[in-house]
Amino acid sequence: MTPQYLSANDLNLLAELADAAGAAILPHFRTGMAIDNKRPDGAFDPVTIADRAAEQAMRAVITRKCPGDAILGEEFGQTEGAVGSQRQWILDPIDGTRGFICGLPTWGVLAGLMQGGKPKLGMMHQPYVGESFIGDGKSSLHLRAGKSGTLRTSSCKTLADARLATTSPFLFPDIAIGRYRAVEARCRMARYGTDCYAYALLAAGSIDLVIEHGLKAYDIMPLIPIIEGAGGVVTTWTGTSAAQGGAIVAAATRALHREVVEILST
Amino acid sequence: MTPQYLSANDLNLLAELADAAGAAILPHFRTGMAIDNKRPDGAFDPVTIADRAAEQAMRAVITRKCPGDAILGEEFGQTEGAVGSQRQWILDPIDGTRGFICGLPTWGVLAGLMQGGKPKLGMMHQPYVGESFIGDGKSSLHLRAGKSGTLRTSSCKTLADARLATTSPFLFPDIAIGRYRAVEARCRMARYGTDCYAYALLAAGSIDLVIEHGLKAYDIMPLIPIIEGAGGVVTTWTGTSAAQGGAIVAAATRALHREVVEILST
Repeated sequence: MTPQYLSANDLNLLAELADAAGAAILPHFRTGMAIDNKRPDGAFDPVTIADRAAEQAMRAVITRKCPGDAILGEEFGQTEGAVGSQRQWILDPIDGTRGFICGLPTWGVLAGLMQGGKPKLGMMHQPYVGESFIGDGKSSLHLRAGKSGTLRTSSCKTLADARLATTSPFLFPDIAIGRYRAVEARCRMARYGTDCYAYALLAAGSIDLVIEHGLKAYDIMPLIPIIEGAGGVVTTWTGTSAAQGGAIVAAATRALHREVVEILST
Repeated sequence: MTPQYLSANDLNLLAELADAAGAAILPHFRTGMAIDNKRPDGAFDPVTIADRAAEQAMRAVITRKCPGDAILGEEFGQTEGAVGSQRQWILDPIDGTRGFICGLPTWGVLAGLMQGGKPKLGMMHQPYVGESFIGDGKSSLHLRAGKSGTLRTSSCKTLADARLATTSPFLFPDIAIGRYRAVEARCRMARYGTDCYAYALLAAGSIDLVIEHGLKAYDIMPLIPIIEGAGGVVTTWTGTSAAQGGAIVAAATRALHREVVEILST
């Protein structure tokens, strides 16, 4: 089934990126691979051979298929595009490196396309599970084992009914933790350790609300077209565009988003 | 490769339990299935059609293959065995129901065999990912897509090097939270939202330490033969048998376990 908006070209390109990243990463999953520490202050910020190999593999695909496009990746930074190009790829080769290091199947490969400064196309791919969530802001799909299904967010409209996910309740700075906890206390349930899967599963209707803080553009931009294509809303805590990262809230419905932003932004 | 201690009979029986549970659960995964609330006080304790169907499916396998064995399951309680039988199966059809409800691939099917009051055989199976971790206390295996590999815990001997996992830092009662936090503060990293996967991945060498509180026998017993068969140590916080649940600590090595129990038990 080819959906209304996602073109065959887009689907093929994303599949090629997914395959390239998966092939680079899986040989390093659940092995005793070396973990470097990229923060000079000694704080723990793991980056692995797998991260770098996957970003290089995706960059090679983009350079071959879309040679004029700019690229911003977590590991290798910014590559300029052709003069006048409006297209920029945003890559996070392994979102959830800590989960990856612990052998959990909760990390994902993120790849997104900005066009004219706006999120245009996005993918979350989990190579070990073998599934992808993709979207273009108008429609979103789940792909696994040759089958595809349309993604739709849940109809959850109030915090009291909401399944909330966040990567860790300790990732919020002092000024934000009180607001976060005020939301969590009113939710039906909260789940931790979710990284990019939380946003993908919000698009799939299994999670109703995701709240995080301190995200980079590559942590969230590729997920925006998936969430919006499935009917969800994703913005900063003050309701502005999420494309540059920051404090992020994603909700299944406009009503739930409104209720939460009211708490988070005051 | 058939390992030294796990018999073909054991492997076949566990595979049949895994298949039966998976077939019962997967049709309900990531669908808008009804979630009942089984706690009369209104606290959220979800139980789904999938939990019950999977336990019934596993009970049917055991009753057919090992008709004299006793069964203790999370959903349907205790079934007596034949007079004089020393064998009791411990079943948790979906460990990590909240993760299941959120569509995450982090829950697992647990099945364990007690013999003469001691853990004899255990399995953690993840039907969506399609992998199993099994053990008999002497050896442990990872099974996926027709391939098997021996499980070995990591060589981590000190807290400063340890990757810690726990389902939620808020599941510890007042008297225990201080001790837990003292351990977490000294670890290399902590990961939440792990449920039974944490113990399986400790056996696989990807996680070094798991600390939890308030576990039931069915939450932990099936994991004991997997952890011990991979070279790990799992006990209560005071160093006694983990088979009946309670406050649990699992560690990759004896040295790490000793260091942690010293903090947790004082």
